Amino acid sequence: MGKAITARNEDYSQWYNDLILKSELADYSAVRGCMIIKPYGYALWENMRDALDKMFKDTGHVNAYFPLFVPKSLFEAEEQNAEGFAKECAVVTHYRLKSDPDKKGKLIVDEEAKLEEELIVRPTSEAIIWNTYKNWIQSYRDLPILINQWANVVRWEMRTRLFLRTAEFLWQEGHTAHATKEEALFEARQMLDVYADFVENFMAVPVIKGSKTPNERFAGAEDTLCIEALMQDGKALQAGTSHFLGQNFAKAFDVKFSDKNNKLEYVWATSWGVSTRLIGALVMAHSDDDGLILPPKIAPHQVVIVPIYKNDEQRAAIAHKVNEITASLKQLGIRVKYDDSDNARPGWKFAEYEMKGVPVRIAIGPKDLENNTAEIARRDTKEKKTISLDNIMGEVIYLLTDIQSNIFNKAKKHLDDHITRVNTWEEFVDVLENKTGFVSAHWDGTGETEEKIKELTKATIRCIPFDAEQEEGVCVLTGKPSKQRVLFAKAY
Amino acid sequence: MGKAITARNEDYSQWYNDLILKSELADYSAVRGCMIIKPYGYALWENMRDALDKMFKDTGHVNAYFPLFVPKSLFEAEEQNAEGFAKECAVVTHYRLKSDPDKKGKLIVDEEAKLEEELIVRPTSEAIIWNTYKNWIQSYRDLPILINQWANVVRWEMRTRLFLRTAEFLWQEGHTAHATKEEALFEARQMLDVYADFVENFMAVPVIKGSKTPNERFAGAEDTLCIEALMQDGKALQAGTSHFLGQNFAKAFDVKFSDKNNKLEYVWATSWGVSTRLIGALVMAHSDDDGLILPPKIAPHQVVIVPIYKNDEQRAAIAHKVNEITASLKQLGIRVKYDDSDNARPGWKFAEYEMKGVPVRIAIGPKDLENNTAEIARRDTKEKKTISLDNIMGEVIYLLTDIQSNIFNKAKKHLDDHITRVNTWEEFVDVLENKTGFVSAHWDGTGETEEKIKELTKATIRCIPFDAEQEEGVCVLTGKPSKQRVLFAKAY
Repeated sequence: MGKAITARNEDYSQWYNDLILKSELADYSAVRGCMIIKPYGYALWENMRDALDKMFKDTGHVNAYFPLFVPKSLFEAEEQNAEGFAKECAVVTHYRLKSDPDKKGKLIVDEEAKLEEELIVRPTSEAIIWNTYKNWIQSYRDLPILINQWANVVRWEMRTRLFLRTAEFLWQEGHTAHATKEEALFEARQMLDVYADFVENFMAVPVIKGSKTPNERFAGAEDTLCIEALMQDGKALQAGTSHFLGQNFAKAFDVKFSDKNNKLEYVWATSWGVSTRLIGALVMAHSDDDGLILPPKIAPHQVVIVPIYKNDEQRAAIAHKVNEITASLKQLGIRVKYDDSDNARPGWKFAEYEMKGVPVRIAIGPKDLENNTAEIARRDTKEKKTISLDNIMGEVIYLLTDIQSNIFNKAKKHLDDHITRVNTWEEFVDVLENKTGFVSAHWDGTGETEEKIKELTKATIRCIPFDAEQEEGVCVLTGKPSKQRVLFAKAY
Repeated sequence: MGKAITARNEDYSQWYNDLILKSELADYSAVRGCMIIKPYGYALWENMRDALDKMFKDTGHVNAYFPLFVPKSLFEAEEQNAEGFAKECAVVTHYRLKSDPDKKGKLIVDEEAKLEEELIVRPTSEAIIWNTYKNWIQSYRDLPILINQWANVVRWEMRTRLFLRTAEFLWQEGHTAHATKEEALFEARQMLDVYADFVENFMAVPVIKGSKTPNERFAGAEDTLCIEALMQDGKALQAGTSHFLGQNFAKAFDVKFSDKNNKLEYVWATSWGVSTRLIGALVMAHSDDDGLILPPKIAPHQVVIVPIYKNDEQRAAIAHKVNEITASLKQLGIRVKYDDSDNARPGWKFAEYEMKGVPVRIAIGPKDLENNTAEIARRDTKEKKTISLDNIMGEVIYLLTDIQSNIFNKAKKHLDDHITRVNTWEEFVDVLENKTGFVSAHWDGTGETEEKIKELTKATIRCIPFDAEQEEGVCVLTGKPSKQRVLFAKAY
């Protein structure tokens, strides 16, 4: 494994970077702000994608693929709606390079191959998709359209971090079109619930559901619903958003349908997305100083088996037994890896699979074979014990289930312990500085106060929680009247 | 369904375009040369991708994701190797737009946000990947690297056609690194065999395996292996390629490893890819004037059930019975759709599902319910018969298997009937003009003759077949001596 990683309490940010690199989830690339998702990280993403994709399909959605490029004129139609991504987009201006006449072996942009209209590499696909829906929608019979797209998008972020903020990232973006406002509102909320279900039950990360304030909404949305998670360092992370777009995009792209009474109406819309950023959230929610802690449901390997042998005879005898075990585990759909590679000692392998967060580790040596036993260890609590091979299936199944719920419960306790109700500005600042986490406080409802609080404390309103009770109070900053608490936090 | 599509014998090219649009596989977009893959086309692609992905993983490969952009300097390193894609690439020169001070609501490129180094939207990823492998490979222990990537790529083609040639397309690209030449040669051939297996056994399209001539090789490859398929109009289509890259990319990007004797060696490489172009091949290989004919193994819907009813009571009674049937079919893993939508008559639905190429159609009316029967129809031969509902599982399974092999056999006969051995130039020209298909002919082995034949006939050497027997002969054009026949054809 080489040297260990920086400890969390020493430098949380460095711990995170070290961990991503060391566990081989991702690597830096030669392109500014773009990362390489390495095979281990991509296997994790595939499991996340497949689980989400099934949930989308179970709720009636289908996948499609729209162009990578958005012509500048379509982008303008969207930007008129509300200033959005123009300040951070990759712009294609030419379609050819040519040999540099002055420098052998060098290429330069061929100025004769300048595009008549610049193309924007999609930062999100509302513009290209709504320009298409215009051709697909004439009547109420064409509605609803329930399309999702798995794609790469590019936003020219100035400060980037592996997974959390990269110039290019992978995501899914749902874009739906509806005949009524009610249906679109239902869809936006339904997809937020799908996200919460996925993040809590697959990623084992508890979330708070709520609405964004107008300041924090997606450009063009009438309401942005979100799920907010809490990282181990007490900072919040927006894990997914679902937007009720009203008729804004239908108006920007002139998408009308004739209803049952033959009356022309603008179409109602939603869009919703989660991205590879979720991997950053997963890492920061559960991992420790020895490496990743992955939830069994999405871990690339759920179980790793490491043999302990001194000679080829022992190795063969163990392999014989392990082959039976892996076959039985695979039959149950369990993702198991047998690592009998010869180029590392067992202790090195133990450390490596701890770093990679494999939930269950089984070690088998010659004595175990004699006794019909194995050592089984769980990654989350590091407990280990010797079990009979006769019980191994049951033990593995029990552990995978128990680890999944244990890491969720641990994260849930951390979240619950870090939602602090405050009533004064002094408390507000103190909690943000010292205890960290979410601060539940009254706010006067104005964008100005929100901005001022952000300036003073770097904390933003993460959401107006759906489950907030109505309660009379006064704004922590201005003392003006307020009817409900909102959640503030410093955030990624 | 609205109007039907152009007949094949009237205008093959127009038939193809009509069919793609009418069957809702794809649509044109607002971006020059880029298409939209519609939900039905994307579901087909998902099935193809999933089958291929499993084959890649079964042969030891893992997926990863590399950046969309290639810095110009890396692109140069590759281009020095052999002139490749510089003439047809999208170039990102800026990272920001700004409001046009002269025209309200317009955006212009912000010249202050010019990139120091231009970024090329990847036309293929050898450059960015080999630049990365350099950091990942030190010793023979780091080898082999067996990575595949599912991604979008962009090539600025001047003449585009839906699926067959688009500026942006989806594909997979395998990029492997090996310690020995033998291992890389084995890999290149193994992956060609995987492609042939997939195209023949899933897509039901027979192929010829062979090597490209030096003229037709991928830039930078020492050998390009390919599978060639034949379309119904007698034109060939390259369905997949697998390249043995020798040490060319390792040299261009300085990727060395220390072998077991601690000696530094350049790494050996392969790359291999298939793309959404395969969907074009699939359409052109099997379909007819009534629409698509899809192989059951990859069809989005394998079975469609259409109820025939006159009132809600009948509709409910049929639905009750059909729910049992669909549940049983789904339990067998069969993809079945029940279309009891109220907005079209059965005849219209029949035509629609013929257009969409659904392999098996089942119709059930009130009389069928009384008699415990259904009408079952196969898309390929259009045969239909009445069956007992007691036998419906067996009938469906039989038909899905039989249709898969029947359309393969039909395409295989067409291919076999269109490989013509010729010995003279007159025969050569005559077959190309009239009979079409592949022409098996002697060639003197020079690039000049190959070029000349292309000029004269538009036919190219599709491949030097692996199974070609050694045979003395003379070149059809020059009369010079030749030792084996190669396959010529006009091609997509």
